[in-house]
Amino acid sequence: MLEQQHSEEIQQRIDQKTKPVGALGQLEAVAHQMALIQSQGQPAAVTDIRIEKPTVLVFAGDHGIANEGVSIAPSAVTQQMVLNFLAGGAAINCFCRANDVAIKVVDCGILVPVEDEHERLVKQRLGEQTANFAAEPAMSEEQVTQGLEYGQQVVQQVIDGGCNLVMFGEMGIGNTSSASALLAAISHEPAERCVGLGTGISGEQLNRKVQLVAQGVARCNTQAPSQLLAELGGYEIVQMVGGFLAAAKNRVPVLVDGFIVTVAALVAVKLDPRCRDYMIFAHQSHESGHKLALELLEAEALLDLSLRLGEGTGAVLAVPMLRAAAEFYNHMASFAEAGVTV
Amino acid sequence: MLEQQHSEEIQQRIDQKTKPVGALGQLEAVAHQMALIQSQGQPAAVTDIRIEKPTVLVFAGDHGIANEGVSIAPSAVTQQMVLNFLAGGAAINCFCRANDVAIKVVDCGILVPVEDEHERLVKQRLGEQTANFAAEPAMSEEQVTQGLEYGQQVVQQVIDGGCNLVMFGEMGIGNTSSASALLAAISHEPAERCVGLGTGISGEQLNRKVQLVAQGVARCNTQAPSQLLAELGGYEIVQMVGGFLAAAKNRVPVLVDGFIVTVAALVAVKLDPRCRDYMIFAHQSHESGHKLALELLEAEALLDLSLRLGEGTGAVLAVPMLRAAAEFYNHMASFAEAGVTV
Repeated sequence: MLEQQHSEEIQQRIDQKTKPVGALGQLEAVAHQMALIQSQGQPAAVTDIRIEKPTVLVFAGDHGIANEGVSIAPSAVTQQMVLNFLAGGAAINCFCRANDVAIKVVDCGILVPVEDEHERLVKQRLGEQTANFAAEPAMSEEQVTQGLEYGQQVVQQVIDGGCNLVMFGEMGIGNTSSASALLAAISHEPAERCVGLGTGISGEQLNRKVQLVAQGVARCNTQAPSQLLAELGGYEIVQMVGGFLAAAKNRVPVLVDGFIVTVAALVAVKLDPRCRDYMIFAHQSHESGHKLALELLEAEALLDLSLRLGEGTGAVLAVPMLRAAAEFYNHMASFAEAGVTV
Repeated sequence: MLEQQHSEEIQQRIDQKTKPVGALGQLEAVAHQMALIQSQGQPAAVTDIRIEKPTVLVFAGDHGIANEGVSIAPSAVTQQMVLNFLAGGAAINCFCRANDVAIKVVDCGILVPVEDEHERLVKQRLGEQTANFAAEPAMSEEQVTQGLEYGQQVVQQVIDGGCNLVMFGEMGIGNTSSASALLAAISHEPAERCVGLGTGISGEQLNRKVQLVAQGVARCNTQAPSQLLAELGGYEIVQMVGGFLAAAKNRVPVLVDGFIVTVAALVAVKLDPRCRDYMIFAHQSHESGHKLALELLEAEALLDLSLRLGEGTGAVLAVPMLRAAAEFYNHMASFAEAGVTV
């Protein structure tokens, strides 16, 4: 858990700014959290919140469950979208350019690998796609162990390169099914509450998706996070869980994206509760299970723009909110400095 | 009203981007609106949405009603905060710096004028403070006419200088009372529904504020927007109304801030319904009447961060959302370009 000894000092600094107490709403909470994180192990609270080389890692993987027709698109689209990310043509690339955020794409195990090397591509494949979790374990426990290590490794590299704010995004046809199954298994809520329309399936597909998720969850006889990952997870989800562990270990905040990343966050907190303090929740997506996942993490999201795309898009859109929070914490005048009557 | 002939072409362009239809939620609606505005009078829809020299104008004025103790701070704070804006120490300055937005401060009639000249200060004073609207008209109809002209003038100057996205902010101790009264008079809703805690008054002050607002509204026997402004308005509110008229005349969108600016928007739409098409609503503030004002304008706000500060802070925080919308509209790959299976 975060050491709280500078918490009061940070709050006083915020409350002395030239504004009514609390008038900057959620930005005040975010400024407090970032200042507290960056003050860990320091003799006094930091004067300035620094945001350096913010980077989104887009983890991609394919899912055996996709063969059951639970998505609007075939598995081939996962690789096509990875190529789109590398070419700079996807929504996440646009938002990264607009907000000065760096991007890396991690192949965690997509059906058809990208042949060429690319400076933004990291190859950490756990296989070519998971097994169909409705019928059998998605992956082995060895793959989970390897995946957690891969995820920690790539995040460590990014942090060692000078990044102090990381974001995770994901791409993988079928991955809302896997996330819904993990959420149902952890929350003990019925599958209906955990499954949503993904990127836009029909009512019939939704019924089928609910049934398959329920079937997968019924197969599991465990609450151990790493076993749940083996039973119901995805290669990209496992690596994101590892990423959360590495960020917390390095005392670096993670700006959490939508449904799938939030479920990975939930698993990471089950593995190590200290991760929770380093999470900032970027947005509430349109996916129905996301609200439940946020509730379980006692999280309040910054944005609510009815997004349902993934890729890390919501996280990157929230970066300007963090920059604004840092700027007011660092440079806004106090009542005394500005000569304003309290 | 906006000409709609390019609307379908714009929507098709958005729908061919490499994402499920509608997956970027409110950003798609904003991109559509901006593209439609910038395509007015053009032979075809614009290829690129341009956002140039976005500028926030902070209109400041003092209010006679403030002598009744309806605010947490004395009227002297209005001038103190104007000096803070000019020195760069306020929240709005921080958010402008963080988001590359220009700022101008307009003295519309504050109690004690700023003596010196300042490159960011525009002096368009209508008086030194309004009369107490609970007892008598806040200003004369001549002042309203002059104020509308002043507001149009300063917005025209900014647009002539190359700005194609304007924002209005405000500062004025007592101005939530004036805005609440205008809202109650326009909506015919009881004062209780239109009055909120402002920047944080007590329950007793709130009761007094409700009573004074109800008293002011009961005095009025008109629905004519300019007469309502004379009866219940503020110098800064009148000038913002003029600003909305000028922006619409120039086909320039206005990113609308919180409660007081939204009430000014409501009055502007009553004066000229064509203004509505140029309004983009930045955020839902914590002030209770803001929701009602947004409903009357059939508006959906982009952000909801529990802000209750004014100054234009919410509007400036939404600028990155517009830049992200423009970037995806301009540069995101289509399915055909990226070779992604539809």
